[in-house]
Amino acid sequence: MVKVAVIGAAGRMGSTVCEAVEAAPDLDLVARIEAGDALDPGTLAGADVAVDFTRPEVTEANVHACLDARIHAVVGTTGWGPDALERVGAHARTAGRSVLIAPNFAMSAVLAMRFAAMAAPYFESAEVLEMHHPDKVDAPSGTAAATARGIAAARAEAGMGAMPDATLSDPLGARGARIDGVPVHAVRLRGLTAHEEILLGNPGEQLVIRTDSFDRVSFMPGVLFAVRHVGERPGLTVGLDAAMGLA
Amino acid sequence: MVKVAVIGAAGRMGSTVCEAVEAAPDLDLVARIEAGDALDPGTLAGADVAVDFTRPEVTEANVHACLDARIHAVVGTTGWGPDALERVGAHARTAGRSVLIAPNFAMSAVLAMRFAAMAAPYFESAEVLEMHHPDKVDAPSGTAAATARGIAAARAEAGMGAMPDATLSDPLGARGARIDGVPVHAVRLRGLTAHEEILLGNPGEQLVIRTDSFDRVSFMPGVLFAVRHVGERPGLTVGLDAAMGLA
Amino acid sequence: MVKVAVIGAAGRMGSTVCEAVEAAPDLDLVARIEAGDALDPGTLAGADVAVDFTRPEVTEANVHACLDARIHAVVGTTGWGPDALERVGAHARTAGRSVLIAPNFAMSAVLAMRFAAMAAPYFESAEVLEMHHPDKVDAPSGTAAATARGIAAARAEAGMGAMPDATLSDPLGARGARIDGVPVHAVRLRGLTAHEEILLGNPGEQLVIRTDSFDRVSFMPGVLFAVRHVGERPGLTVGLDAAMGLA
Amino acid sequence: MVKVAVIGAAGRMGSTVCEAVEAAPDLDLVARIEAGDALDPGTLAGADVAVDFTRPEVTEANVHACLDARIHAVVGTTGWGPDALERVGAHARTAGRSVLIAPNFAMSAVLAMRFAAMAAPYFESAEVLEMHHPDKVDAPSGTAAATARGIAAARAEAGMGAMPDATLSDPLGARGARIDGVPVHAVRLRGLTAHEEILLGNPGEQLVIRTDSFDRVSFMPGVLFAVRHVGERPGLTVGLDAAMGLA
Repeated sequence: MVKVAVIGAAGRMGSTVCEAVEAAPDLDLVARIEAGDALDPGTLAGADVAVDFTRPEVTEANVHACLDARIHAVVGTTGWGPDALERVGAHARTAGRSVLIAPNFAMSAVLAMRFAAMAAPYFESAEVLEMHHPDKVDAPSGTAAATARGIAAARAEAGMGAMPDATLSDPLGARGARIDGVPVHAVRLRGLTAHEEILLGNPGEQLVIRTDSFDRVSFMPGVLFAVRHVGERPGLTVGLDAAMGLA
Repeated sequence: MVKVAVIGAAGRMGSTVCEAVEAAPDLDLVARIEAGDALDPGTLAGADVAVDFTRPEVTEANVHACLDARIHAVVGTTGWGPDALERVGAHARTAGRSVLIAPNFAMSAVLAMRFAAMAAPYFESAEVLEMHHPDKVDAPSGTAAATARGIAAARAEAGMGAMPDATLSDPLGARGARIDGVPVHAVRLRGLTAHEEILLGNPGEQLVIRTDSFDRVSFMPGVLFAVRHVGERPGLTVGLDAAMGLA
Repeated sequence: MVKVAVIGAAGRMGSTVCEAVEAAPDLDLVARIEAGDALDPGTLAGADVAVDFTRPEVTEANVHACLDARIHAVVGTTGWGPDALERVGAHARTAGRSVLIAPNFAMSAVLAMRFAAMAAPYFESAEVLEMHHPDKVDAPSGTAAATARGIAAARAEAGMGAMPDATLSDPLGARGARIDGVPVHAVRLRGLTAHEEILLGNPGEQLVIRTDSFDRVSFMPGVLFAVRHVGERPGLTVGLDAAMGLA
Repeated sequence: MVKVAVIGAAGRMGSTVCEAVEAAPDLDLVARIEAGDALDPGTLAGADVAVDFTRPEVTEANVHACLDARIHAVVGTTGWGPDALERVGAHARTAGRSVLIAPNFAMSAVLAMRFAAMAAPYFESAEVLEMHHPDKVDAPSGTAAATARGIAAARAEAGMGAMPDATLSDPLGARGARIDGVPVHAVRLRGLTAHEEILLGNPGEQLVIRTDSFDRVSFMPGVLFAVRHVGERPGLTVGLDAAMGLA
């Protein structure tokens, strides 16, 4: 039974994490820590692992406090710069504990991105579509842009040139965005949440990798995976794909 | 047994039509007419219906010759202007024969376009994706543009306003083209032929209509349908959807 | 402004209807009626339309009470037999008010079913896939079965024979169920809600109609459509497709 | 410039390989060898690599002849038993040349199968759909069965139990086949060629991997990859995935 503390337990993500931990038969929720609570062995209540979904201003201090208390940390809060990562990595090694920081805990998205990069060298063409609810203010999504960059890097490493594209006339911009040469298209549709589709094509064949995130709970399998396995990799690990042994 | 003459029998589409007619148990291919052949009762060989896939310069004369020979005409050649349609319609009524002129004989594409327009008034959001081989020189495809205009017209008739779209930042044009306010996206991928996907969304639900054309033979079911049913509608009919009773 | 009363306002569907009515700028929620409340002009509070999502034992009495109060009724409760429909239809005509009873208010599902039947006569092959969460106890879904029956009826009316299928060996039953000759496949996958895909095929072409229901709110556009338009069709109407002018 | 000999050059696959080699700027087709032709340094014409798409009765002898002539062999012919593999492996090591034998050269199918197995341990649910033309006599396809077995093996290795499935009533068999506990569904639809879809699900998320083979040319990118890289792995390699470094 892994004992888990959730920091930011009253937030949207934090409260969802609490529910997921409580529902998992091999995990024990020992502490719900909210903004303003102290973070010390008393409040951490003998946890083996702490999960932090808080705010960029406080997350680094939280991780140091966890390491001081000799517990592993799984962090979904964004905003980490290279210096903060460096400090936390050094502290983790000294403390003999592990830290996993990941910008995205959606397993299907992480796997889709990794598979796209693995497949890219074998296909002439690759394009990325992302589909989101219409309240999203930016296009394309960060995940789609990262996917396109991963495809482009894999193609470059394999010495591939530009993709075939005979388009001469596209007065309205139907061919979408280009990110490192990879076309990216963004759909905004009422009813959707967050979806991505990667199309890869060769003469006579197509490979499609699609990921659908229907709900915030889609991050929970990734968070629980991280909680269960964070201790297996010493020091600092960045990215769920690295924790899954994919990167 | 319907007797069929194919005009332009040596062309890419014409030869495919010949094969399809020969393979149909209820149709009899009585004449293969090539460029330069005369078009008269002798060469038409007692046909009930002639199919014309030729060139814009000759198609109107071909149809008049068919009507003079008292046979119905099914026409896939493009380039018809309003005056030519008017002349052919008048001639057909006088001759007591029927003419069907259609820009697209792909049944799935024609149905998809019609269904998109029928569904559009019931959904907050609608977007069109088209996916083609990378040798296509223009974007978006004519079918996708026509689909978008059909959706827009149906929304306007239902008194609907603009679709929800909170996009504030799209520096690279990932949101694609807008045709009458409907977003249209174009993918170019090696391995594909001609594909279209229409996405319609409401809170909590999505309707997707997709059409795949894998091969030139995809036009044959529509051509054969037209051959079998052209005589049922007197005078001139424009569009396979009209012939199918959908428009 | 249409004034709306919700009967069964404390139930799962009823409370979702209340939220949807409150969020619609052209509708005014004037009464939330719960089990045990009287149903009379006082509690109905001047409503123009009442929405009933209650239980089979009480729904017919509720509709008669609405008609006595001279208001239209939109009913999502199931369990209506032919005699009850007859009685309610007669009462509606006498009262000069309208009643709409529908087993399914998901617009995308209703449209998908209708489009499948419309398209079926034009395609050699048709199959139905339904995909649901793994807590569903029966397979295939009622919607998928109804879709298959609609396809089969449309094929029969068009005089079409059996679909092509050369399968000689299928020891494990991978070809799925047959409903009136139409293959139906059922997927059960964690993360899904209710999804259906209809595949129609001809030589060289495919038409796919897909409907996704992500959430109970997916019924609300259909309920609100019914509330807005119930008064346009005198007497009793059965089915959202009929109310939408599709059947 | 890699010099290539094609054995079985007059067959359906062999002639397609000849066309693909001729179209590749970095490959040189030096020999087309047909049934009945001798296989010796003369007919092999200085080739670096020979591609064999012939028949089970002759393929092993062909490979030995290639190795005697000190050239690498890429083999798509089926019917290899363990003894024949053993003999060819030993010969290849002695000759200092390489042999690649693969049952499937469709890159997208090979990648899809590999990705399915990689992803399987991270998802509660997994199902396999395969869709083929209706002239196929067996169901499910060998590729779908192999995919299901790969998923099942990956789940077993990760210590996962049965998938969630509450189905109590399925009188018509809509839930399809089970292969090592993984549901497999087979669709037969006019217009399709060979398609596979793997669905993986977790609470709130779905990962879909889809592969479409539209045409026999879909095997060519895999064959050409093998021709270019066969020499990099000494001795015998079985499976395109192994040659791609995926297995």
